[in-house]
Amino acid sequence: MIKLVALFKRPEDVEEFDRHYREMHAPLMAKVPGLGRMEATRNLKAFRGEPEYYLIAEMYFRDKETFDAAMASEENRAAGKDLMSFARDVVSMVYGEVEG
Amino acid sequence: MIKLVALFKRPEDVEEFDRHYREMHAPLMAKVPGLGRMEATRNLKAFRGEPEYYLIAEMYFRDKETFDAAMASEENRAAGKDLMSFARDVVSMVYGEVEG
Repeated sequence: MIKLVALFKRPEDVEEFDRHYREMHAPLMAKVPGLGRMEATRNLKAFRGEPEYYLIAEMYFRDKETFDAAMASEENRAAGKDLMSFARDVVSMVYGEVEG
Repeated sequence: MIKLVALFKRPEDVEEFDRHYREMHAPLMAKVPGLGRMEATRNLKAFRGEPEYYLIAEMYFRDKETFDAAMASEENRAAGKDLMSFARDVVSMVYGEVEG
């Protein structure tokens, strides 16, 4: 199983970010072929000081082949373009094979 | 459901880090009362350039009460002490309520 993790630092305008994410971005991501479960954890906290991130969103794909096809899809291109339109300065992404 | 996320930057000695994590740290974490599922994604990749993290480890707790009790436990203190012994310079942690 491949997990794609999007890490978002706290945006300047949290309310507008949440609105765009919910109304525009999540529906675009949901159209990406081969995407399995999505899991978001928002308004993250740290044990001490400021949390490193505001939101972590995770997307699961059955295997590397499915992931590669998903990433190359038109739907993912649209979602990526949207992401850059509202989160370019706060997002970073990593992916890898889930263990166990 | 509460998710605790440990983000590890790439350690200098990956082999020793993996050994310590597997042989010492994971067994200590597994003893923390109330800990549900754990999920690790290692050797993370980025689409461009260097990935922000080497390893993301996630730990799930049924609810905030269970999470708070787990964090206050002797077992978690032991796991935290171990974590600082081998990953102080590379780890950051956030937690929050899982959506949906």
